Order: sequence, then structure tokens, then C-alpha cells
Amino acid sequence: MTIKYPNGRTPSNHGGNSLKKQVKPTLSHSHRNRGMSFEEMINSSNLYYREKGLAVIHKKPTPVQIVKVNYPNRSAAVITEAYFKEASTTDYNGIYQGHYLDFEAKETKNKTSFPLNNFHHHQMEHMRHCLKQQGVIFVLIWFSSLKRCFMLPADILLDYWDSQSDQRKSIPLTDFEQKAEELKIGIAPTIPYLESLTTMIKGDSINE
Amino acid sequence: MTIKYPNGRTPSNHGGNSLKKQVKPTLSHSHRNRGMSFEEMINSSNLYYREKGLAVIHKKPTPVQIVKVNYPNRSAAVITEAYFKEASTTDYNGIYQGHYLDFEAKETKNKTSFPLNNFHHHQMEHMRHCLKQQGVIFVLIWFSSLKRCFMLPADILLDYWDSQSDQRKSIPLTDFEQKAEELKIGIAPTIPYLESLTTMIKGDSINE
Repeated sequence: MTIKYPNGRTPSNHGGNSLKKQVKPTLSHSHRNRGMSFEEMINSSNLYYREKGLAVIHKKPTPVQIVKVNYPNRSAAVITEAYFKEASTTDYNGIYQGHYLDFEAKETKNKTSFPLNNFHHHQMEHMRHCLKQQGVIFVLIWFSSLKRCFMLPADILLDYWDSQSDQRKSIPLTDFEQKAEELKIGIAPTIPYLESLTTMIKGDSINE
Repeated sequence: MTIKYPNGRTPSNHGGNSLKKQVKPTLSHSHRNRGMSFEEMINSSNLYYREKGLAVIHKKPTPVQIVKVNYPNRSAAVITEAYFKEASTTDYNGIYQGHYLDFEAKETKNKTSFPLNNFHHHQMEHMRHCLKQQGVIFVLIWFSSLKRCFMLPADILLDYWDSQSDQRKSIPLTDFEQKAEELKIGIAPTIPYLESLTTMIKGDSINE
């Protein structure tokens, strides 16, 4: 399924379009860690974990529908017409000590809740299918105004998603404080999600 | 690392550039299965496994370096300048019954051996790192002239890669016949790699 985003919704030339929709240059400079955006913080954490040999987690390339390609003489092929596609899965996956890891990262400027319409139906279905295959699936949520990051297991997110009514279209911050793991932003790794994962894996009694 | 391919090496607008470099439209029509290319056969197998709830394996989007984006009024953002990048990992990964799966697919027109220069250094390193994390890592090799498909475990491939000398820059077909699993091309799934994987997982004594 190809979705062509309306004007202005896919501004940057790096990273996943789900994150890009929300990352604003003015915001990223207010982040800790030398002006890194949320996506950059995650990428730098992934790099740290890979370099330390702790896990192999990568961000998937931005899905692009290529329409026209030119082949100038003796130089690189140039894509001259292409469109952003909506990702059919999550942005990040990989392996950590035998466990399949899969997560999505989202941010909100809201200060009291996270709106569920940040997720797409097929992303939720992807997480559901991965859970059935015994994956370690979660989301990282960045409250950019509060500079707080939470790791929420996908099964809890799916409970909210499935019980979503007209009244409840978001997860209150207070629920994150109770049900999610808050990640303290650091230097290396910037977002220490693996450390909290260990708790999550043990808690879920996944065999190691 | 951005590598701009020389003229004509990235012809198609679908799938990974590693495969694309070798897939030719004229060739694909000589394949079995109603003219599917090797990549299409793998994608259709992945879809089959997903729909049956057997595994969640996806092809990663083609990595593209986006340089210019136009935002026409009231319509989709148009990428007007972009370049193909070399993939830093493999083309396929996902989860199967708790196991992290990761593989690359390559084809050759050769009839007697598979040239190792089809792989890039960083792809081999990626496989090595994933093996250390206890992933189930392999390559699917398609001898297009022979219409034969082999699944070769990454540890065996790495043995060839590491012992590579000026004399040996390819793996003989006879070695595939002895050390790899030959996959019989079918209808659904087209390339039944999960079935052979079960043997591979048991053989490697990975716990289920």
C-alpha cells in the first residue's frame, strides 16, 4: 500500500517517516545530548550497542516508491522522481542475545498523554504477529516537552489499542508512569533501552 | 557510507539493490513460477509464511540517500533527487518461533560456482555479529541458469570468506551440493526455506 503524504508531512531526508513527521529542527535543539533529535539518540544508542558487541539493532531504511531513474553517462544513477511510502512494519529491529527485538519510536509534544493515532493499524498488526512468534516487542515514547522517555511493552500498548473507544484515544502520562519503564537519557548509550529490556525479558519469562 | 553506483547498476524500482544488480527482465521470464524473479519468489514466500502465521519475515526497503524534496501545493511530497545507497546489512530479517532470522539472497548466471564478490565486507560483518548474538543466519543462492536454489548457513559462508585467497574467489557448485541445503522451488511457498531451517536450527542445537 502506497500512501502519498500531503504537503509538508515528510520534511527530512533521514530516517523513518513516522518519526520525521514529528521531528522539528527547532525542537531537536532543545533536547539534551548536544542537540540530538529523538531519532538520532536512538541511532546513537544502536551504534553503541553494536560497537560493544551487545546487540545488533538497525533502523530500517525509509520506504520510498521510486518512479523515475536517470543514468547519466559515467556517473551515479539519479532517482529523479520518488515518493515517501508509509512503513508497513516498525522502524527498528534486530537481535539481542538470541532474542528478536522489534520496536517503534514515537514522540509527542503533549504534556499529559500520548495520542494513539501516532500508530497505524498495520504497525499494530505487525507487533501483534511478532509477539505471537515470541519476539521482544515494545515502543519508545518521547515526551519532547517534558524530555521524558518511556519504554512500553507492545502487549500493554495493544490492550489500549484494542479497547480504544471514542472517549480514549490516548494513553495518559500517569499510565506510562505506572505501566512503562522510564529510561533515563544518558551519554553512552543515550537511550539505555537494552538495560530495561533485561527486566522486561525476565518479567515475561522468556527463556534465555 | 554512501556508495553511488556507476551507470546502469541499479535498474529497477523495487527491492534491494544487491539483488537488483543481477536480476534482468529477460532472465526472470525463464524462471519457473509464472515468470517471477528470484526476489519476487522470496517475497511471495515471506508473504505466504506471514499469512499462515508461521513467521514474520520482511524485506528491508531499498536504502536511498534523499537529496532534494519538493512540496507541491496540496499534493504529495516529491523526491526529485536521490541516490541508491549500498545496504549496510542484509536484505531480509524477522522472527520465526522465537528465533531471529537474517538472510541475504543472491543470484548468479554461473553454472559451476558462485563468485564471493557478490557479497560486501560489511554484509559479512553483519552476519558475523548476528551469529554471535545466536541468530539463525544464512544466504539463499540462486543459480539462475540451472534454476537451482541453495540455502547456505552463514558460518560456512564465513569460512569461505575468511579463507579467501587469490586462487579461490568463488564457491564451487559441488560444495553447495555437499554443504548447503537445496531448496525445491514450489508453488506455495515458492522457496520453502523455513522447512529447511527447522533442520538447520536443530542441527545447530539452538533451543526451541
